[in-house]
Amino acid sequence: MTLLETTNPAAAGGRGEPWISFDTDPGRYRHWKLAIDGPVATLALDTAEDGGLHPGYALKLNSYDLGVDIELHDAVQRLRFEHPEVRAVILTSAKDGVFCAGANIKMLAQASHPLKVNFCKLTNETRLAIEEASASSGQVYLAAVNGAASGGGYEIALATEHILLVDDGSSAVSLPEVPLLGVLPGTGGLTRLTDKRKVRPDRADFVSTVAEGVRGQRALDWGLVDELAPRTRLAEASRARADELAARSDRPSGATGVQLPPLERELGTDRIAYPNLTIELDRSLGVATFTVRGPEAGGPGEADGGAAEAPTPGDPEAVRALGAGWWPLAVARELDDAILLLRFNEPEIGTWVLRSQGDPEAVAAVDRVLLAHAEDWLVREVTLYLGRTLKRLELSSRSLIALVEPGSCFAGSLSELVLAADRSFMLDGEVEGVDRPPAALRLDGMNLGPLPCSNGLTRLQRRFLGHPEALEAAAARRDEPLRAEEAEALGLVTFVYDEIDFEDEVRLAIEERTSLSPDALTGMESNLRCGGPETMETKIFGRLTAWQNWVFQRPNAAGEDGALRRFGSGQRPRFDRKRV
Amino acid sequence: MTLLETTNPAAAGGRGEPWISFDTDPGRYRHWKLAIDGPVATLALDTAEDGGLHPGYALKLNSYDLGVDIELHDAVQRLRFEHPEVRAVILTSAKDGVFCAGANIKMLAQASHPLKVNFCKLTNETRLAIEEASASSGQVYLAAVNGAASGGGYEIALATEHILLVDDGSSAVSLPEVPLLGVLPGTGGLTRLTDKRKVRPDRADFVSTVAEGVRGQRALDWGLVDELAPRTRLAEASRARADELAARSDRPSGATGVQLPPLERELGTDRIAYPNLTIELDRSLGVATFTVRGPEAGGPGEADGGAAEAPTPGDPEAVRALGAGWWPLAVARELDDAILLLRFNEPEIGTWVLRSQGDPEAVAAVDRVLLAHAEDWLVREVTLYLGRTLKRLELSSRSLIALVEPGSCFAGSLSELVLAADRSFMLDGEVEGVDRPPAALRLDGMNLGPLPCSNGLTRLQRRFLGHPEALEAAAARRDEPLRAEEAEALGLVTFVYDEIDFEDEVRLAIEERTSLSPDALTGMESNLRCGGPETMETKIFGRLTAWQNWVFQRPNAAGEDGALRRFGSGQRPRFDRKRV
Repeated sequence: MTLLETTNPAAAGGRGEPWISFDTDPGRYRHWKLAIDGPVATLALDTAEDGGLHPGYALKLNSYDLGVDIELHDAVQRLRFEHPEVRAVILTSAKDGVFCAGANIKMLAQASHPLKVNFCKLTNETRLAIEEASASSGQVYLAAVNGAASGGGYEIALATEHILLVDDGSSAVSLPEVPLLGVLPGTGGLTRLTDKRKVRPDRADFVSTVAEGVRGQRALDWGLVDELAPRTRLAEASRARADELAARSDRPSGATGVQLPPLERELGTDRIAYPNLTIELDRSLGVATFTVRGPEAGGPGEADGGAAEAPTPGDPEAVRALGAGWWPLAVARELDDAILLLRFNEPEIGTWVLRSQGDPEAVAAVDRVLLAHAEDWLVREVTLYLGRTLKRLELSSRSLIALVEPGSCFAGSLSELVLAADRSFMLDGEVEGVDRPPAALRLDGMNLGPLPCSNGLTRLQRRFLGHPEALEAAAARRDEPLRAEEAEALGLVTFVYDEIDFEDEVRLAIEERTSLSPDALTGMESNLRCGGPETMETKIFGRLTAWQNWVFQRPNAAGEDGALRRFGSGQRPRFDRKRV
Repeated sequence: MTLLETTNPAAAGGRGEPWISFDTDPGRYRHWKLAIDGPVATLALDTAEDGGLHPGYALKLNSYDLGVDIELHDAVQRLRFEHPEVRAVILTSAKDGVFCAGANIKMLAQASHPLKVNFCKLTNETRLAIEEASASSGQVYLAAVNGAASGGGYEIALATEHILLVDDGSSAVSLPEVPLLGVLPGTGGLTRLTDKRKVRPDRADFVSTVAEGVRGQRALDWGLVDELAPRTRLAEASRARADELAARSDRPSGATGVQLPPLERELGTDRIAYPNLTIELDRSLGVATFTVRGPEAGGPGEADGGAAEAPTPGDPEAVRALGAGWWPLAVARELDDAILLLRFNEPEIGTWVLRSQGDPEAVAAVDRVLLAHAEDWLVREVTLYLGRTLKRLELSSRSLIALVEPGSCFAGSLSELVLAADRSFMLDGEVEGVDRPPAALRLDGMNLGPLPCSNGLTRLQRRFLGHPEALEAAAARRDEPLRAEEAEALGLVTFVYDEIDFEDEVRLAIEERTSLSPDALTGMESNLRCGGPETMETKIFGRLTAWQNWVFQRPNAAGEDGALRRFGSGQRPRFDRKRV
């Protein structure tokens, strides 16, 4: 088995290359062993050496590549949805004496710059999803480090809330990227040392430059780990700590999980179609147009039999019965999958246009369920997942343009797509000969808290940074359909055009966008999307990732004589010693 | 005249290249015209086209290069020290119809990567010094934009507190870097749009992608400028606004400024010597050793005639009489100059070792003056300058290692060097046969607020992030000499060794450091030095600069067919369209 899907070759830009897909499930894992024992799950890394996603390297010593990370990403997701009973997850290794050697170096050395960057980004997102599960899902992760944890291996442990390290006189946690590879511990390592674990900066400096790392008492004293255990007691100590953490969880007893079946997805030549989302690809222009379909009116959001406009929320039991078919969950899964597919497989499509189609009132009805039952474990998971998906969208290095048109259903949670866009265009009035209601935008409670950006602000707060009066004015109009003029006056859309100009203006804007330097746009968007406060999350994606990407480009790392390429060759790297 | 000094060619690594120096004064400016009229100074840009620092480009349309920026850096500094009477500064242009075209593009296209990065860094530091003068020195900057302000030209205006734009139907503010050059508005432009001026992100996105920029009413409505004036009224309106801002200043009346004479500096083959600072260069190892000499005991800090240990502060009049000769100002100037010289001229010297020599009590006495007269305009300027110098040190892409040894005088403000270092080593006990007091470290009030890092925290707060008890314990011991064991127990130094091991351990640490990838170290230090909160300043140097540096490396900008290289050639750039 491989994670490469050969699907429709025409869909890979006519290049006939197989696509990287993110479809997997525990029955197909090659690298992780998932075991569940009451409230505690154990997720043990046991890489198949010959199971690399690409040829040319062996996944020795529990080193990982994208394929390993895709499985982890899947496992973290399924544990949240399919296992309400799991309240603590022990991350460990099934190999003796080694926890995880981090990202496979041969893989990194041979990977293209875009693949390296995309790989690190997904890895970072998964690490953050682990932290979110601990913080917000009542599913706390801990790491039982039963052997050497190097680089990305230690970085996985850093994403948990409690690190137990075996105290055997040899097992160390280490960040050998700088001394051995000439790159950074770039999947959160540096930021988590200083900002999460509050390791003294001079000690963090030492740790990050010493290939052999730190073990035992010093690792504990310096705050690099939380607990030591002799080899014979590690399993027991981990379980005891897991039970203790599980006891504090607010996950329900006796609930049934929601299974996440394979996605229905059709890959056509220029088209990816899911039940609730269609993506049209224009490869010559470099544009993908996402069209999200809203929920059926009177659907599950209206399971209480209320009229379409009734604010009464639906019944969470009805939601549970729908499971993965419930519209917001289905749409989050489809969007999430599409974002990842396009990120990895369609790098030349640099502009994503966001549209919607449906009944805004039906979206608003779903939002009422999300808001009324925010405490319900499943509803909470769905909201958190919508939040992660929106963040993933904004972290994609693609220009985002939203179109609010007659017949669109940008209400509440779905209107976050408009607020996430770099620019939005709204059509003023009806379109002659088209039987659709005039474009309207609609805010509700989902825009006012439950779906924060990476920097912790809502998208409205970020939009109106330093203008509380504008924020208030917009929030005051929630639950009302806002026509183009009003939406513009409230500052919710960038430009408004009438029927005569809309199409031309949008076409022009998109064509202009696609003509700009892809790199400059990536850098620009990474800055403009992150106004205001920074969080550990934004620091990881902004500061840390940007520096890592820079280092990844430098001959001292990636050149013929660079450290990354020469590692393991017996030859020392040759450095241009100039400091930049 | 050129800003290149030919000095001692051996000092330029034996390469015989002339050094870039930062020595200038208003009498030698080629690009700026400084005029002072009562409380208002006018600093008008009027670049000499043939006055470029390097051959190969003409400084047309008030475009700038490093030489122009060195003069601005000098002017901003002198206005603060030499002109206590100046309470507002109008930045404008002496050329008709053009304010400033930003960084010279031919210069950028031909510059090496290190030069581009160093140039942008100094530019950013000067912009921040302008903002600091406005915020903390009672010397408020405003911009009278009398014509097109493009790219770096608009970015200078963004560094002021009030932007007046001529409303002539054509003059625009613009950030054409992305659409024309394939790089970023990287000297603060993106960050200042979102975080300082709180421009709505979608509007910021529009502004940053439209080469022609935004003019008139829209520029005002969108918050890109603060005021419009017809051409005939611009000077008058600027002066009126300057007078209004000047009236709010707390700078003194009738005070005499402190002249900043040329620095005494000897450049030897492997040595730079100032009266209070000597730097030894080991080019084969790539190490510069800074030795700061403390003030004379009983010097100006003790002008009140108190004993060396007396806490009574000196008299600010005595300070004023000493002027630029006062130790903390002299030391700040020398350190600042040395940092810039080494940054630009000795890129292969990647490790800076920080030592001191003198009487810690004499440093503490100076600190008492700084603390007791913090409200005095000159004392305030000296403290702010010390703060900027320490920030400049930390923003230098060099590893910093501090040595606290017998005879060193790391007390208070000077001990900030130890806290700024990536790692510090302290010698425990006396050294046989050497007649110097055992090493001691000493904190005082200067470590508890007046010298913040770029992120707004004191270095002690940054060091003890998340450990308030450790911060409190260290602060409680202020004004006491702390021997090695105590300093280590308080967490103030990284490692402590006795006489037998010290030299070897330090040598080993330095040798290890110099063997690592310079790029990886730069990236690592940029992350580890910035734990905790972020400010606009850290965002500019972290997020924005890191992305800019990445973009600067990309073929889409800097390659043969890249936008930066092809600009003005009549040929369109060719882009690799892959998004990373």
